[in-house]
Amino acid sequence: DVSFDPKEHQHLRYNPLRDSWVLVSAHRMKRPWAGQVEKPPEEHIPRYDPRNPLCPGNTRANGEVNLDYESTFVFENDFPALQPDAPDPGLDQHPLFQCKAARGVCKVMCFHPRSDITLPLMKKEEVVKVINQWADLVEELGATYPWVQIFENKGAMMGCSNPHPHCQVWASNFLPNEPATSDRCQRAYYEKHGEPLLLQYAKQEAEKKERVVVENSDWLAVVPYWATWPYQMLLLPRRHVLRISDLTAEEREGLADIMKRLLTKYDNLFEVSFPYSMGWHGAPTGPCLKENNSHWQLHAHYYPPLLRSATVKKFMVGYEMLAQEQRDLTPEQAAEKLRNLPDEHYKTREN
Amino acid sequence: DVSFDPKEHQHLRYNPLRDSWVLVSAHRMKRPWAGQVEKPPEEHIPRYDPRNPLCPGNTRANGEVNLDYESTFVFENDFPALQPDAPDPGLDQHPLFQCKAARGVCKVMCFHPRSDITLPLMKKEEVVKVINQWADLVEELGATYPWVQIFENKGAMMGCSNPHPHCQVWASNFLPNEPATSDRCQRAYYEKHGEPLLLQYAKQEAEKKERVVVENSDWLAVVPYWATWPYQMLLLPRRHVLRISDLTAEEREGLADIMKRLLTKYDNLFEVSFPYSMGWHGAPTGPCLKENNSHWQLHAHYYPPLLRSATVKKFMVGYEMLAQEQRDLTPEQAAEKLRNLPDEHYKTREN
Ligand SMILES: O=P(O)(O)O[C@H]1O[C@H](CO)[C@@H](O)[C@H](O)[C@H]1O
Ligand SMILES: O=P(O)(O)O[C@H]1O[C@H](CO)[C@@H](O)[C@H](O)[C@H]1O
Repeated sequence: DVSFDPKEHQHLRYNPLRDSWVLVSAHRMKRPWAGQVEKPPEEHIPRYDPRNPLCPGNTRANGEVNLDYESTFVFENDFPALQPDAPDPGLDQHPLFQCKAARGVCKVMCFHPRSDITLPLMKKEEVVKVINQWADLVEELGATYPWVQIFENKGAMMGCSNPHPHCQVWASNFLPNEPATSDRCQRAYYEKHGEPLLLQYAKQEAEKKERVVVENSDWLAVVPYWATWPYQMLLLPRRHVLRISDLTAEEREGLADIMKRLLTKYDNLFEVSFPYSMGWHGAPTGPCLKENNSHWQLHAHYYPPLLRSATVKKFMVGYEMLAQEQRDLTPEQAAEKLRNLPDEHYKTREN
Repeated sequence: DVSFDPKEHQHLRYNPLRDSWVLVSAHRMKRPWAGQVEKPPEEHIPRYDPRNPLCPGNTRANGEVNLDYESTFVFENDFPALQPDAPDPGLDQHPLFQCKAARGVCKVMCFHPRSDITLPLMKKEEVVKVINQWADLVEELGATYPWVQIFENKGAMMGCSNPHPHCQVWASNFLPNEPATSDRCQRAYYEKHGEPLLLQYAKQEAEKKERVVVENSDWLAVVPYWATWPYQMLLLPRRHVLRISDLTAEEREGLADIMKRLLTKYDNLFEVSFPYSMGWHGAPTGPCLKENNSHWQLHAHYYPPLLRSATVKKFMVGYEMLAQEQRDLTPEQAAEKLRNLPDEHYKTREN
């Protein structure tokens, strides 16, 4: 009998945060690719563009003028998916036609006054300012809203329509599907094992090492055992932390350090500004601030689409949409590749 | 007080097949689009290409020669994500590192000998042959495998690497996430309401009409009330049918008719060969053939990515991946747009 080799033999892995499975078929990387090739991310972005609505001092679609900001800058999204005052649709009768009110706010947050810079190329102190701003927004919006979703769509491939370094913050009067599932899974695990799921997980990964990409005394970045996207990442504190606003000054420094190192590895992988969607998950807020959320552990997810090169992404399509997500290399292979990349950014090496 | 208008006021809708919610923010269609523009689908495909591994008589990557086929043609995928004989990974101890054996087969099925044709442009009798072949594959593979996933990735935008009209059939020794959720939801609904979820749903939609795009005496195609993709479609039989192999000859004719009409509308929307991923969900097979599956109703899902034009798609990214899916027009608006399009294909009109 042949013995099991995860790189050669397809298998299922369990995602304990989503209570779902992923099909790992690493031998599929051998197939040739004749499909769609993406445009490589634009590499020549002007430092300041007078028509870019995110640059300091410029006028936005609604006529408002941006501050002449010098670090981060937050404003209300001019085309928000969530507004604070939408009327209630009323109670619908039939169980198959259920509808609910949705209220919230959508903010945009610029990371830096310059358009031609990204997080890995920013100074550590500048990244700390981004983290502080995230924490402030979670405190401010989380005072009333049960969920505050910080997310960054980076690169045109991820639907980002503006090259200026920025993220979005959408706060809602409801707990969205993904955090609702994650809340349920973390709670069940905590009740059964008496310790937060992601705290146990970080300890295990710190020992096993094979999926760790970068680490420091407060943080750990791993390609999770159950990753679906080729170079997916889970960023975890070592200490039990509920929300980003609970991080100490030292932990924020450590986070800036690990973010810069992780994102440098990402950019170095295909020597291109690496596209991804990322976001933070922490314990729910608003009315949940008064509840016991010990089962929660703060974490960030990174979902990058690229698979083979700067221009060939993984398509989560037919089988993935209708049946189950499938990946073409093992998480261990992905982690090893990233781990072995240089720590210096290819752009600063070139100069 | 302003009264609720689904086109103007964001709200949540419940998806009873997935037990999840979608955020509908139809006012977002007003925002200008400055983001990524896709390559339009290739319009000039040769009828026969001597290098295309899917054409009749050609040699594939593994050296096998295709039959000189005249209608449909099925063969084993040369780079299968599922193989019948993968060894067992063994029992893993830790609940956070769970792994299971996955076994199965992956087949490719060509719809037609010509590369320059698509389902809406095929003759009705030719589409019936495709349906018969689907039914045969479900019977054959479903004799042992609990799940047989038929799916079609159409267009380079959906990761399809070959323009020749074809679909894939992946059978597995496990029930994948999506059908597992759908099975659970349909079962719970049946137990509570005494009738299959999708049978009740089809009746309601046939009466309400506002989300119906095309229909005939046996079938109904609707933009579901809980659609996430802009022009998503749910194709439903009117009769209670468990599996595609249970369809009568007349129902197969009716299915060919409604598929042709639906896909013609799709192509007419932006006058382009409309990209999508589609697939069939029916009652589980293999060991489940002996169980009671009355809660199941056969259906097909269509997930097309386009939103604004032939080159601007909907990005399911940051908020959608990390929090909840969000759509930019109401399902009723999408259905109305499609319904009002001509029944004749733009390509045959041109000639
Ligand atoms: O099998 P294909 O057509 O080569 O590949 C395509 O469909 C598969 C099944 O949905 C996906 O896993 C691949 O990412 C996609 O490119
Ligand atoms: O808000 P943006 O950047 O215009 O839009 C982008 O992010 C949103 C939130 O993930 C998505 O709903 C949009 O489809 C995407 O294009």
